[in-house]
Amino acid sequence: MSIYFAPYKDMLFVMRELAGLDKVSALPGFEDATPDTVEVILDEAGKFATEVLAPINASGDEEGARWADKAVTMPKGFKEAYQQFVEAGWNGVACNPEHGGQGLPKLVAAAVQETWKSSNMAFSLCPLLTLGAIEALELYGSPEQKDMYLPNMIQGTWTGTMNLTEPQAGSDLAAVRTRAVPQADGTYRVFGQKIFITYGDHDMAENIVHLVLARLPDAPEGVKGISLFVVPKFMVNADGSLGERNDAYCVSIEHKLGIHASPTCVMAFGDNGGAKGFLVGKENEGLKYMFVMMNAARYAVGLEGLAIGERAYQKAVAYARERVQGRAIEGSPAPVAIVRHPDIRRMLMVMRSSVEAMRGLAYTVAAAHDAAVRHPDPEERKRNQAFVDLMIPVVKGWLTETGNEIAYLGVQVHGGMGFVEETGAAQFMRDARITTIYEGTTGIQANDLIGRKIAREGGATLKAVIGLIHGTLAEVQKQSGADFAAIGSALGRGVAAITEAGTYIATQYGQDVRAVAVGAVPFLRLMGIVCGGWQMARAALVAQEKIAAGDTDPFYPAKIATARFFADHVMAAASGLAQVVTQGGASALALHEEMF
Amino acid sequence: MSIYFAPYKDMLFVMRELAGLDKVSALPGFEDATPDTVEVILDEAGKFATEVLAPINASGDEEGARWADKAVTMPKGFKEAYQQFVEAGWNGVACNPEHGGQGLPKLVAAAVQETWKSSNMAFSLCPLLTLGAIEALELYGSPEQKDMYLPNMIQGTWTGTMNLTEPQAGSDLAAVRTRAVPQADGTYRVFGQKIFITYGDHDMAENIVHLVLARLPDAPEGVKGISLFVVPKFMVNADGSLGERNDAYCVSIEHKLGIHASPTCVMAFGDNGGAKGFLVGKENEGLKYMFVMMNAARYAVGLEGLAIGERAYQKAVAYARERVQGRAIEGSPAPVAIVRHPDIRRMLMVMRSSVEAMRGLAYTVAAAHDAAVRHPDPEERKRNQAFVDLMIPVVKGWLTETGNEIAYLGVQVHGGMGFVEETGAAQFMRDARITTIYEGTTGIQANDLIGRKIAREGGATLKAVIGLIHGTLAEVQKQSGADFAAIGSALGRGVAAITEAGTYIATQYGQDVRAVAVGAVPFLRLMGIVCGGWQMARAALVAQEKIAAGDTDPFYPAKIATARFFADHVMAAASGLAQVVTQGGASALALHEEMF
Repeated sequence: MSIYFAPYKDMLFVMRELAGLDKVSALPGFEDATPDTVEVILDEAGKFATEVLAPINASGDEEGARWADKAVTMPKGFKEAYQQFVEAGWNGVACNPEHGGQGLPKLVAAAVQETWKSSNMAFSLCPLLTLGAIEALELYGSPEQKDMYLPNMIQGTWTGTMNLTEPQAGSDLAAVRTRAVPQADGTYRVFGQKIFITYGDHDMAENIVHLVLARLPDAPEGVKGISLFVVPKFMVNADGSLGERNDAYCVSIEHKLGIHASPTCVMAFGDNGGAKGFLVGKENEGLKYMFVMMNAARYAVGLEGLAIGERAYQKAVAYARERVQGRAIEGSPAPVAIVRHPDIRRMLMVMRSSVEAMRGLAYTVAAAHDAAVRHPDPEERKRNQAFVDLMIPVVKGWLTETGNEIAYLGVQVHGGMGFVEETGAAQFMRDARITTIYEGTTGIQANDLIGRKIAREGGATLKAVIGLIHGTLAEVQKQSGADFAAIGSALGRGVAAITEAGTYIATQYGQDVRAVAVGAVPFLRLMGIVCGGWQMARAALVAQEKIAAGDTDPFYPAKIATARFFADHVMAAASGLAQVVTQGGASALALHEEMF
Repeated sequence: MSIYFAPYKDMLFVMRELAGLDKVSALPGFEDATPDTVEVILDEAGKFATEVLAPINASGDEEGARWADKAVTMPKGFKEAYQQFVEAGWNGVACNPEHGGQGLPKLVAAAVQETWKSSNMAFSLCPLLTLGAIEALELYGSPEQKDMYLPNMIQGTWTGTMNLTEPQAGSDLAAVRTRAVPQADGTYRVFGQKIFITYGDHDMAENIVHLVLARLPDAPEGVKGISLFVVPKFMVNADGSLGERNDAYCVSIEHKLGIHASPTCVMAFGDNGGAKGFLVGKENEGLKYMFVMMNAARYAVGLEGLAIGERAYQKAVAYARERVQGRAIEGSPAPVAIVRHPDIRRMLMVMRSSVEAMRGLAYTVAAAHDAAVRHPDPEERKRNQAFVDLMIPVVKGWLTETGNEIAYLGVQVHGGMGFVEETGAAQFMRDARITTIYEGTTGIQANDLIGRKIAREGGATLKAVIGLIHGTLAEVQKQSGADFAAIGSALGRGVAAITEAGTYIATQYGQDVRAVAVGAVPFLRLMGIVCGGWQMARAALVAQEKIAAGDTDPFYPAKIATARFFADHVMAAASGLAQVVTQGGASALALHEEMF
């Protein structure tokens, strides 16, 4: 089994040169996040991932989380690793210092979280959900709720969950049926069953803070009648100590394709008289709160696509360099390592260039998020927020689909050994498979992208992004040589493709929404490869500048080569995708439902 | 769990209208395979698949084959199903009547085998390997070997295996080390370990006939020193009864991502003094024999891609029609079945149209195989054989890659339930994953396609195929209406793409083989979608003819709609792939190996 190492060099390059770490550090409140400090943090994060999280990834997959007597036992080593995680203070990296967090920028948190997700995706889901619950309480909790829950949650001694899904209410939360009955003391009793609750129960923390969507007795039907409740596993006494066990139990866990170590729970609330719950924010506003949090959760799941792609790439490279099989196609005196074979090389380059493009896009969006929250100029905040809003579905949808493709290629590079579970390549493929589904499927991301993010505003933000890409393109066209010619050609075709497809969507959405929606996922994919290619082009420009300035680090020519490969191989699909978006609506809908 | 039903209507349509069943039936020796008889056979095959094989597919996956004391126990129900399979005579459908086979055309056998592979891929691997071993003995066995082994193998009471791979000899058989030591009586003692031996041991049949690649003591190095031996599990006495246990044992089985019910064995030959073996054919000709058989095996694995795609499609359709979630995007008074959502519809159409295109191509190649073997005119035999040789890597490579994509989409259509193993959609994805690897990876197929099948003959057969596609294109262009306009446009761009890319390969292969080989897999994919689209266009033309003749079967307009979708959505990738082939060589090879 190859070992995971955090790709520091590329992480730091992307943070500094593409995402603008120096500008992020200059934002009010982020003064401590100097490039030097960030380097130290990243170094520590990488060590933690390599030394603590990676070693229990395969064993956690094999053993899996186990359920008995309404409680979950984690696989060997997870409890201890989580303890170390809490002690090292990793959980609160980006949380509010007011409640004990370190208040680092999202850009830094993204890089740190990438290392958790690469080294042990199943483990990383526990903090992912805790951070979502923290955000909900930060934004909408009462001062008392914040004081009661946030310090422990930010420290990580208590974890959090998000209880949305019910059997009849998956993507469609309007169908939620869980009930909350008001009590005389101002609390509520919650009754209902939730499914697919990540880390709904486990033995790594003292307490679990469940956030639960439920309906009040007099609530209106549909999405306008959903409220948010906090339902702790153990009640919290006034002095902060833990009290009685609440009536919220994990009654079974799912047997899943991947992330075996992450318990996916069926949660029963109120089977024994009612789970004590407390309203968060206002009645019937629960869905709105969830939507606000969702951007963060979707971004975090997008990072999983990047992270699992990085891990699968590292493993494939290690195998390809070590495995000797067959002569070189041009002839060789002896068998060669398979990295020499052109198709293996092509696969590795698809994996590598896609990972770098994903990282470029993801970190850039994180930096925009930081500016959207912290920039002193309201116009800048607004502009950055619009960029983030447009890009979140791309980050979630494109990174996760691409992560799956990379994990698939990772198995392929391993040949027959890839199909053998002990090799470990198959786990990445199995783990990755959930990422295009949870926190909203790729189809839902794509509908959000074309509907709320493009059509609703007539494509204004998209046009701004197209303008930015044209700016990069103009820089690329000033360079000489075959590499920049190829990058420029692909970026030019790419930006033309998103312009054509985006215009079609913005103008036709109101005319024939069904036909336009057929092209939603192809458009999301198109946006991903063009915006990813845009970041790669920016990276190549920076590399060229460094080379011109006399820097001899081989990292820079390699970056240009990878950007060129991405342009030649990945961006080549752009024109075809635009054609699917603009011309593919009718034929997808031609068959009557009965004909399937 | 949805039930598998053989897609009779499409199977028969493709056999009759695209593959030319009537012409196949007219070949010498196939007179009994009348369209009516074929319909009855297919009907029975479908029933067998639905009633006997499908019910033990999920349970077989969950239980898996088990190993203990050097022997494999199959999952519950497999032994009984295999017994029924043998009794019904399915094993020998396409085998030589001289030894008890039914001698049906490969076209008919392909359709029958599709039903086994769809309903239970893990089960179907047992006859797949037996048929490979039968073919080897038919072609190269001595008359005594044929008499001794073939009747029982064709009946299926004995099964067969192919023992090629060793730890250091996967794709590269030159590295085989297993030894065969000649004995005074003209037999051999075989010593060595083989890995990845499908059904190397099991409890479904009386005897197992291992075909083993090994080296004689004085054999030259490399591929020219490999001989083929038959090594039965139980020795066969002169009267045909079974004798002593041979020294060939399964010493462990692999823990795999999929096909859990198919035992993948590590076989130890000669750990206790030597496994008795008998030379097949001539010394040092083993690899040649394997290559001849390989076309059949590669075709059969290609069919697995089609079959698992069909199964995944059926299951996704069943779920999409039943699962109610969310309102229609254009508005609806109540939540709707998800088949109504445009992106679900798009995914189902990708799955359906790809399956139909794969079937069109696979069956057409099977019919060409029949003509290549049986046609009275030697020129016709030669022409058909050249077509088959060109298309085998496309059938193996494209169908299996596409089968994986379809199984992946099948999980996506199921949303969160797709990630839960009990749903069954994930099994298809796990099972499909081996198909792009065994019997030669996609990379190996693609190298065979561009090297042996195109460059070596200057692209002559490819040019002939391009001529045939132009013929279909001319017919399409004579039709009126938007559907045929779109189909013609896509087919025109597609044939231009394979012409451009094929010319590049034929002319540049000798100049810069490494750069050309970078485009091997993209070219294989391009060939797949264009040749698949060609078959869909042919299907649409037949459908149009039927409609014009007054046939009101909704199957025909649906076929045109599906062909149009394939043209709009799948073939749209053609130009981009041609660009990758012709321009992507340099950048894939730019990085030095050390930079990975």
